[in-house]
Order: sequence, then C-alpha cells, then structure tokens
Amino acid sequence: MKFAGSHILSVSQFERADVEHVFSVADRMRPFAERERMTKALDGAILGSMFFEPSTRTRVSFGSAFNLLGGEVRETTGFEHSAIAKGESLYDTARVLSGYSDVIVMRHPESGSVAEFAAASRVPVINGGDGSNEHPSQALLDLYTIRKEREHQGGEVDGLRIALVGDLRYGRTVHSLCQLLAVYEGLHILLVSPVELRMPESIIEYLRERGHTVLESDQLEASIKQVDIVYSTRLQEERFASSQEADLYRGRFRLNQSVYTEHCQPNTVIMHPLPRDSRANARELDVDLNDNPNLAIFRQTDNGVLVRMALFALILDVVDLVDTESRPVQWFTARRFK
Amino acid sequence: MKFAGSHILSVSQFERADVEHVFSVADRMRPFAERERMTKALDGAILGSMFFEPSTRTRVSFGSAFNLLGGEVRETTGFEHSAIAKGESLYDTARVLSGYSDVIVMRHPESGSVAEFAAASRVPVINGGDGSNEHPSQALLDLYTIRKEREHQGGEVDGLRIALVGDLRYGRTVHSLCQLLAVYEGLHILLVSPVELRMPESIIEYLRERGHTVLESDQLEASIKQVDIVYSTRLQEERFASSQEADLYRGRFRLNQSVYTEHCQPNTVIMHPLPRDSRANARELDVDLNDNPNLAIFRQTDNGVLVRMALFALILDVVDLVDTESRPVQWFTARRFK
Amino acid sequence: MKFAGSHILSVSQFERADVEHVFSVADRMRPFAERERMTKALDGAILGSMFFEPSTRTRVSFGSAFNLLGGEVRETTGFEHSAIAKGESLYDTARVLSGYSDVIVMRHPESGSVAEFAAASRVPVINGGDGSNEHPSQALLDLYTIRKEREHQGGEVDGLRIALVGDLRYGRTVHSLCQLLAVYEGLHILLVSPVELRMPESIIEYLRERGHTVLESDQLEASIKQVDIVYSTRLQEERFASSQEADLYRGRFRLNQSVYTEHCQPNTVIMHPLPRDSRANARELDVDLNDNPNLAIFRQTDNGVLVRMALFALILDVVDLVDTESRPVQWFTARRFK
Repeated sequence: MKFAGSHILSVSQFERADVEHVFSVADRMRPFAERERMTKALDGAILGSMFFEPSTRTRVSFGSAFNLLGGEVRETTGFEHSAIAKGESLYDTARVLSGYSDVIVMRHPESGSVAEFAAASRVPVINGGDGSNEHPSQALLDLYTIRKEREHQGGEVDGLRIALVGDLRYGRTVHSLCQLLAVYEGLHILLVSPVELRMPESIIEYLRERGHTVLESDQLEASIKQVDIVYSTRLQEERFASSQEADLYRGRFRLNQSVYTEHCQPNTVIMHPLPRDSRANARELDVDLNDNPNLAIFRQTDNGVLVRMALFALILDVVDLVDTESRPVQWFTARRFK
Repeated sequence: MKFAGSHILSVSQFERADVEHVFSVADRMRPFAERERMTKALDGAILGSMFFEPSTRTRVSFGSAFNLLGGEVRETTGFEHSAIAKGESLYDTARVLSGYSDVIVMRHPESGSVAEFAAASRVPVINGGDGSNEHPSQALLDLYTIRKEREHQGGEVDGLRIALVGDLRYGRTVHSLCQLLAVYEGLHILLVSPVELRMPESIIEYLRERGHTVLESDQLEASIKQVDIVYSTRLQEERFASSQEADLYRGRFRLNQSVYTEHCQPNTVIMHPLPRDSRANARELDVDLNDNPNLAIFRQTDNGVLVRMALFALILDVVDLVDTESRPVQWFTARRFK
Repeated sequence: MKFAGSHILSVSQFERADVEHVFSVADRMRPFAERERMTKALDGAILGSMFFEPSTRTRVSFGSAFNLLGGEVRETTGFEHSAIAKGESLYDTARVLSGYSDVIVMRHPESGSVAEFAAASRVPVINGGDGSNEHPSQALLDLYTIRKEREHQGGEVDGLRIALVGDLRYGRTVHSLCQLLAVYEGLHILLVSPVELRMPESIIEYLRERGHTVLESDQLEASIKQVDIVYSTRLQEERFASSQEADLYRGRFRLNQSVYTEHCQPNTVIMHPLPRDSRANARELDVDLNDNPNLAIFRQTDNGVLVRMALFALILDVVDLVDTESRPVQWFTARRFK
C-alpha cells in the first residue's frame, strides 16, 4: 500500500505489512505525544476536520494529533444549517472544501458518504466514521493497543487468545477489529454474546478461512479463563424485546474486579472502545476495575493519538521530517502520563 | 483607499485602482494557496472569526486564508446563548471581543450590524455578510474570477459581455457584483430573470450612468449566445405565487450541457455563487456540466482563499513579508489542485 | 503556592503572595497582549478548551491568551450529544481528554464538577466556571483591575474603599472577589443591595475577621460618595416577588452619568463583570457612561487576557521563556488599544 496522498477509508485497504508499517511509525510518535519532544514537521499544513455528526473524542484526538505534528486545524461540526441541507451534493461539498486544507478527516452519519466525498476531493481524506460502515482509525488503535499490551505480556499478536464480549451483531468496532486481526496468524477468538446478538456469519467464516480458531459462547465467565485479552463492548438496550431481557444479559456480561479475580489469569488485559456507561445500573465494565493495572481502556485512547499521528505523517509523507524538525519540550509536562 | 488598519464593510469602498491592487496581491498569494510555498508572515497574529449566523464555507475559507498566512484563528459560531441574547449591545460586544484578536471577520443576520460593530471595534473588521446588505469578499472573489477567466480567454474585463441569470431582485450577490463591475469600462450586461424578479431599477441606472450597456430579458437561450460569461444564481421557490409558477421559471432557466452546447460559444465561462442545489428536480445548474472545463464554480471558491489572503495581508500591512518570511512546502501536495 | 503543574480550581488557593506573584507576571504579559512583541514560549503546546456550558467571552479570552503565548487550542463546546450524556463519568472523560492536551480549561454547569474532573486529569486543569461555585480567573482579573486602577489613582489596594452594588446574595462574582480582597489590609467595603439580596453573613464575617470594615446599605447614592471604586452587578428580575418590585430596585441602583457627577468623587472607578444589559429599560449601568474615562469595564476584559496568560505561563512554568522566545510584532497594530 502506498500511503503518500492516499485516502484512508476502510480497514480492507490494510495488509499485514501496511499495519506493521503504521505501527512502527506510531512507535516513533511516542516521544512527541508524551511531550519529551515537539516537532514542526507539518508547520503551515492545514487539517480540515469535518464532523457532520458529533464525536468529541474522535474529533479532538485527530485535531490534537495534527497539532502535535505542527499543523493547524480548521473545524466544522454539525450540518443542520449547512449547504448540504440545502441540496448541495457531496461532490460539490468535497470540491469546495478540499480547496481549503491539505488533508481532511470526515465523519458522517451515512454509510458510504465518506468514500463518495473522497472520490471528489482534491486532497487525501481519512474516514472518521461513516455510520454503521467503517471507522478504520478506531480499529487500528485497538490493534495497536493489543500489540503493545502483548509486548508488555512478553508475547506477540500471532497466536493471541482474545474474547470479544457484548453486542457482536451491530458493533461496527468489533467487525472492523476482526477484519484487521485476520492479517495475523493462529489467533484463538472467543465470541461472547447473547444468541440474538451473534457475530455475523460472514465475519466468522472470513476469520476461519484465514486459519484462525473461532468459538462462540453466551457465557462470560467460562470464556475469559484462558484468554490474553478481554475486549468488552456495550450492550444496547434497544436491541432487546424488553428492558427485562436486556437486564438479564447486561447482568450476565458484567465484568468487575471480583469476576476478574475469580476467572481471569493474572495479566489478562481488559479493553473497551469507550465511552463506557458508568452509571450504577449499567453493569458493563465496573468502575472498581479502575485501579487494575491491566485495564487498558485509557491506554487505548492515548494510543489513538499515536496512530492518528502516524496516519497523517504517512499520508503527507513527512515521517522522517518529524524527527529532523524536532526539539525538546521546554514547558512543564511531568504530570501528563502518570 | 488606504488598506492598513481599515475595515472592509462594503463594495462601495473600492474604486478601480483598489480592486486592481487587491487582485495583484491575490495573484502573489497563489503559490501559498497552491502549497508550493508556506509563509509565517502573520506568525503570532490572531483572527477573531465571529459567525453569528452559520456559513460553513465562508467561515472556513477566511480561517484557512489566515492560517495560510501563518496566523491563528479563534472562532465563535451561533449566538442563541450569547451575551447579545441577554441584552448586550453590539458596542459592548465589539469593545470586548476586539481585545482578543488582531483582526475580526464577522457575519450577522442583520443589515448594518457589522458596520455598527466595526465602529466600536479597536481592530479592523471584515464584513463576512450582514443579512441582505453586503458580502464584499464574495463580490471581490467573483470579480477576481471573472478577471482570471478573461485572461485565460485572452481578454480583459473592460468590454466584457456577461449574462446574470436567475433571481436578480433579491440576490445580494449579483447586486454587489454589479456595483464592483461598474468600475470597469464598456461592459455589456444581460439581465436574465422572470419579470417578477427583475434587477432593481437603481442598479440598472447606476450601471448605465457609468457608461455600460444593460439589456433585460426573460429568455435564457437567446441571452447566452453572445456572452463571455454566464453567471447563474438560485431561483428561490418562496418568491413565487405557486410552486407551479416556480417550476415554470426553473425549467426555463436551467443550464445543462445540451443547452450549453447548442447556445453558448465554445469558451463561455459558467459561474455560480454556490451552493447549488444538485437534487434531481432542482433544474438550476446541471451536474452534467461537471466535466465542462469552462465550469468555473470551483475556481471561484479556490479564488476566494486568494482574495481573502490578500485582504488580510493588506489590512495588516504584511504584503511584502509574505514572501520574505516564506519557504518551500515539504509535505505531500501533488493532489491538491488538479 | 506552587504553580507549576497545579490545578487552579478556587480563589481559596491564593494567599497574598500568590496573588501578587500572578499580578507581577500579568504585568510582564502586557507587551504581548498589546502587540508590541510576540512570543513562541508555548510553541507546540496544546490547550484543551472544554466548555460544557456556553460562555463566549471566557472561552475566547482563554483561547486568545494561549495563542498569545504561542500555543494551539482544541475546543469543545456544548455537550448534549457527548459521551457524558451517554452515562460516561467525569472520571473517564478526564482520563481520556487529558491525553489530548498539555493543560485544560473547563466550564461546566454543575458545582464541584471541575474539581472532580481535575482529580482524574493527568494534566493541569483551570476552572473556567463551575455553576454557582467558582470562577477564579474572573475574580483574579477583577482584583488585578482594582490594583491597576488604584495605581492610576496614585493609591494601592490596602486601605481601598469599594462599594459592591446589586445582587450580592446570588452573585458568584462578588463572593469570589470578596474572598480575594480579604488577603489585603484595612479595606472599607460598602455592600449595597436590596434587603432580600444581602451578602451572605458568612462572607461578611470572614471579611471582618480579617480586619476589614464592612457596612451594609440599600441606598446607592449615599454609598458611592466616599469610595474609590463602584463595582456594579446585575439585578436579576427572577429574584423578586414581582416585576414591579424588581423595577423599584433596578431604578434605585441605576448608575448613569448624572448620578455619577452628582454623587461620586471625580476619579471614582466604575467596574462591572459584564455582560451588561444595554436595553433601554435595563437601568443597570447606563450607556451614557461610555465616554467616562473612569469606566473600567473594558479594561477589565482586556486585563482578563493578561491574567489568563499569567496563569498559563505559571502552570506550564514558562514565565522566563516568554521573554527569551520573543520578538517584535511586524504587522499593523496601531488601532488595537486606543
């Protein structure tokens, strides 16, 4: 895959070598994200951040990543009053807006809209989420986190044992993650969900064709005994016939410290795409796990900045400039990553 | 006209020498907008972007223009919850906000509001549109585009033959454009509109007093045969007694490739202030014109960045610094302007 | 008080030496805010501006202050659609967002929310207003203005005679200001309010314990005869049993030029936290005072930029860098502070 000048629209663009290239660049971004050094590699460049649907953390993560590389950000959020609402085509919008920046990140509620926009854009476009379709930077940051956590466990991604837990039917996140995971070898994937919310058969088949072991279950506790990573996702109330039924499943898939202590191995990593519902009745991923050093959910969002910096640096072809245009940070930073 | 430190509130501020001065500066901005070079001329300067009414493309165009000159942008959009809604005067708002930036761009739904704000501001203010009154940077970018397209045709603005088509009664854009065009000599202006939506008599008289030929018509096809440029604008449904009547006119003023081929000269340029309605029943400016090289609508929006850069550089008196503080761009840019 | 790396959550953090340290740094920021010089002290640093409640001037003032120090700003406004609305805890929000910036300014409608957020944040947090609780930078800019106006009068803050006028019961601003004023010595404080809107007894006792003279009155004209400063605040209609009763008080506390001329000493300074209601029936602080050179309300907002620059420079420990990384401004600035 050629990165310079390319759109990033789908995880299907990435073969194993591409993923590993992104991750090696992400590793090189860490001193900048952790504020040991700062860089002017993209000094003067402009990111057009077009969020036609709200997503605070994705928007700020992309914007900060671009700032960390030395560039400027021009943002648009919402679109009720915009030209699109007056009947302007995505073609026209893309032709106009791509004259205002060097690269665009776009989020839009409709499946396929970002690809349509990119086809008319004169600058590279990154898909920041197009409805239920794709959100490639989220899948990349999840996989990057898996890789870093495995390194910390003394292992690698090949041969990984992972449990994916929750709503596996409608969750865009886990679908994209499975597609990316498939580029590695010999994975053991446990799919833990209510029967009604099973992973789509096409994804299971795809994983098996690539040589991975896939098991399905609707029992959390038995499934998390032998895995390296538990990746938990939200169960959405509206997917069930009744609130009572939802409560039944939410209670059964609730991960807290006592379940962890009783059933997980000592170093099992816990992940979640966030936001998590921390209200008392949420029964999703308990706040009593907050002091567990294997809770990786905030390392995921931190890693998101590294991965997005890597994508920008690759697309705009400044990977080497990041170092040559850098210098030490001079302001107070000790509290940043504790 | 003295530019340094001045407000830009109305096209009536511009005599011919002023217009040509802005355009010669805009020409010098092209290497920066096209990303051959970048400049730090306004490094450290702050633009206050106050959009009390939504307008994504005008807001982003101004913001990007300021970034391209090396400056920072602080934005405010909407004002439902703002101090103005609590009874604060434009005088107070201007006194306060002008302490936060070096120059302000303001858009506001009420006619005359930007001039009232500017009178109390301690920094230069550019009118980004005040209701049905003025939007001078739009008129300047239209005229700059006309000049560049004429250069490409091997002609100049003096002696230009142009058809203005659509709602000429309520369109702020065409009124301001006519006022600016008037500073040139010997124009042939064809005003093509439904009788109900004729150009105001005062503007027609003004053009004739300045020595220009003005003809009126409600027939599109006859009017576009002998012109260098067709400037098309939106017909707004709500201006007509009935939807049927609107459809009648919209059909009659619809410009598409077959009408163009049959009636226009081979190099006739097509312009439009955008956004255009691209829905199937819009019958405004057809998408089948998108591959016509004489469709200049996206060159207009690109030129808007150049003209706004020129206004900032002139008002803040850094025209020469733009070059002396510049260097080549080092990131990937090949796809930007194709 | 140690500033580097600290949160700024409450005026109660500040002893007299701290206040004076902030103000001496604020003095050093003036050449940068007035655009004689520009600095790159925070070049590459990122401010996370999180306004979960609208406040245009506080948001833009903080953002501009950060830009004036050379840093970048990533903003979030509103939160109807945000993760918080989906049940995310402030703990999670803080852990995530503090990975995206070097320092955070946060405004939130709920009392105590900013402190809760700060406890989980990995970077310093400044309270930009948490409901009816605290807004420390506003109190600091008010006190800084008092100090500068006293210098101009040839006096100092010790021994100051000040009248606080209006709604003293519910006004967060005057409560915080009293707490800060208390660190000085020998103040004469006149509290002028309707009986129903008296200053809370606890604050009066606190001031008296620190050795200050406190008098209460419901008569404006008698109270402003012998003071150096009149600090006027808004009377809110909804605090009264009826609109008639509100009108009675609003009329009685109205300060205009003729009241000023008849009752105040020639150099008495007028302050107000803004916004002021300038509608004809507001009867709050008349627009006929706008030409009075002792009206300090816009000097207050200008000083807000200096105080916020000082807080950022202290928290991020770059006070000396501000000068060493500076150079003269090259763009047009003559009109900025007239």
